[in-house]
Amino acid sequence: MAPLAGIKVLDLTSVVVGPTCTLLMAQQGAEVIKLEPPEGDLLRKLGGKSRTPGMSPKFLHFNRGKRSITVDLKTEAGKAVARRIAAGVDVFVSNIRGAALRRLGLGWEDLSPLNPRLVHCAITGFGSGGRYADLPAYDTIIQGASGMASAMARTFEEPRYMPFVAADHMTGFLAAQAICAALVGRAASGLGQAIEVPMFENMASFVLTEHMYQRTYGPEGEMGDPRIMDPSGRPVRTADGWICVSPNTDAQAFAFFEAIGRPELKDDPRFNSVAARLGNVAAYFGVRAEGLRGRKTAEWLEILRARQIPAMQVNAMEELFDDPHLVDVGLIETQMHHSEGEVLALRPATRFSAGAPVMCDAPRQGEDGAAILGEFGFSADEIESLMTGAVRPAEKLQ
Amino acid sequence: MAPLAGIKVLDLTSVVVGPTCTLLMAQQGAEVIKLEPPEGDLLRKLGGKSRTPGMSPKFLHFNRGKRSITVDLKTEAGKAVARRIAAGVDVFVSNIRGAALRRLGLGWEDLSPLNPRLVHCAITGFGSGGRYADLPAYDTIIQGASGMASAMARTFEEPRYMPFVAADHMTGFLAAQAICAALVGRAASGLGQAIEVPMFENMASFVLTEHMYQRTYGPEGEMGDPRIMDPSGRPVRTADGWICVSPNTDAQAFAFFEAIGRPELKDDPRFNSVAARLGNVAAYFGVRAEGLRGRKTAEWLEILRARQIPAMQVNAMEELFDDPHLVDVGLIETQMHHSEGEVLALRPATRFSAGAPVMCDAPRQGEDGAAILGEFGFSADEIESLMTGAVRPAEKLQ
Repeated sequence: MAPLAGIKVLDLTSVVVGPTCTLLMAQQGAEVIKLEPPEGDLLRKLGGKSRTPGMSPKFLHFNRGKRSITVDLKTEAGKAVARRIAAGVDVFVSNIRGAALRRLGLGWEDLSPLNPRLVHCAITGFGSGGRYADLPAYDTIIQGASGMASAMARTFEEPRYMPFVAADHMTGFLAAQAICAALVGRAASGLGQAIEVPMFENMASFVLTEHMYQRTYGPEGEMGDPRIMDPSGRPVRTADGWICVSPNTDAQAFAFFEAIGRPELKDDPRFNSVAARLGNVAAYFGVRAEGLRGRKTAEWLEILRARQIPAMQVNAMEELFDDPHLVDVGLIETQMHHSEGEVLALRPATRFSAGAPVMCDAPRQGEDGAAILGEFGFSADEIESLMTGAVRPAEKLQ
Repeated sequence: MAPLAGIKVLDLTSVVVGPTCTLLMAQQGAEVIKLEPPEGDLLRKLGGKSRTPGMSPKFLHFNRGKRSITVDLKTEAGKAVARRIAAGVDVFVSNIRGAALRRLGLGWEDLSPLNPRLVHCAITGFGSGGRYADLPAYDTIIQGASGMASAMARTFEEPRYMPFVAADHMTGFLAAQAICAALVGRAASGLGQAIEVPMFENMASFVLTEHMYQRTYGPEGEMGDPRIMDPSGRPVRTADGWICVSPNTDAQAFAFFEAIGRPELKDDPRFNSVAARLGNVAAYFGVRAEGLRGRKTAEWLEILRARQIPAMQVNAMEELFDDPHLVDVGLIETQMHHSEGEVLALRPATRFSAGAPVMCDAPRQGEDGAAILGEFGFSADEIESLMTGAVRPAEKLQ
């Protein structure tokens, strides 16, 4: 049985940070109810051109395994629907800012009395208790505020974003982790709790664990791990492409010197220990780059792997579809989506011996509304009445 | 009570990917036993110059809240110690490759009979069942293989690593999430299970959810989200620095056009909807860059925030220490480390209403060995005998 089988999640998140969190939970068997506003999750349109309206490719990837109900939370009836569903689930998660959530009557203080076992997770841009609390945020805002863009400036001269909404992904992973930790705690205590997962504080921690470095010891210490920041810390050219090679331990480094025909470097005081190579990181990376120019990538991979030296070709994104290992493990699969037809989809990357769930397709907006209301005890009359107002019927295929 | 209070973890991980996983668990109250080889976790030396040997600043950040025992797993007595501890914990986690783990007698098949409730998590470079299984990996190898380095090439011309061991961090977050999900499942089933968290498959999924894009529909579709890949998608210069601004919804975009004195753009067919701005993303980013040049960052922040437009200054990494929000919330704290003296440390970024644990300092190598053996039922005689061979006493302060 999938690890989160039986766990019900009311998901008021949108775009990437929250949907990443609930995607992981859906992949592990949780029943995720995606509550969307009448205009739908912004990612339905923002995530690229789609075959049918509101079903962008990014939306498909981030929302597999979830069902959708459209609720107008601007109406009292809509708020009541959300609260009634929240009373019957295990987890409530949103990336709505705190003040707005409380105005909707969906804060922890509102929902906990209805459901003391509820784990209530607020993903926010900035944590409460600080002066940015309640400022709006997207991934880019957090990359800028947290020092991620500034770390890029060390290598690329000007502040740049990473070519991923990485702050969103990482905070989503962390939110799913925190929710599951709280569910573990609930199994012991019988009680839910409120969790606050602020993007800014989490991403500042990501930057600082990595790069606080000598600043750990005081204001005069230099920040930035030189092994990572050094401009020569990069994939290396071979005779026909690019290769990644990272000999970090003494055993790996010495085997690498042998492999490139420079065994004398084992005794070079610049390179003969972890500390020495760290102190001469640019020179060490230079030896690496120079040593690898002469052969093709495939030849090097054979030579280096025979010596247990970590090495890999640089895959272009397009090459992932044909990467032999990914083909072996079937990471990318063809899915027949019920409204979009044949699409490529991803199976969960992490595997659990006790099993994985069968995941439903990413939903069309609102298509599970009536069914979900029924499951949470709304009567046929209530459902009929709601569906003409606060709860919207499924968007029609156009 | 902290959510993972009472959960015991035997942690055979090193460097960053695994220690990130168990750091999260320690921050949430788990009791983490770090089992190190006689040479110690590589990060003790690789993580920067330290005040005392083997206590690099990166090691301090990634290993707070853990205790250390040094065990020589090359000896039979050492393997027996690891198995006996594993029999008494809730979670076993390692980033040792599968074949080596089985040779140590520490695979799932070995430990599950001793402890059917054990959650056994193997963090690997490459998943079993694929042809790269058991190849060695570091963060850089995975950034190269997964398309992360290639995504950087779209913007920076050549494949580059991100200036973080981001694959390590993300896989560590995912491993902690998976472990907690399995603990949730165990609360229902009474049984542990084996989890495999491969870095490559997880990071390929990270890249592909983000950038599979039109390739979702077939081989002729173009990869890469242009909103993220476009070279003009970057922090923007103001009169005195850099600013991040992301008006994504119609309301935000229209308010932004007002703010920069170009209200006519609301009716411009290139910019009057989410889809239109997505189709003209370079032009839209150009308007943004041009519009912001005339005022200082602080002025813009006031103007933009008053209109609810997401905006933030670009913080240099060094500025995080004085960022007023981070100061308000106390993310960075001064800690008196028992052997390293006064250092800066990070409190957990995510907050749980039911409480947080008091975390111990990052350990000196092996300093908790005898105490840990005692807690797992080794007799005084056994401990004395082990400490002269398979289990090493604490490294002495030098």
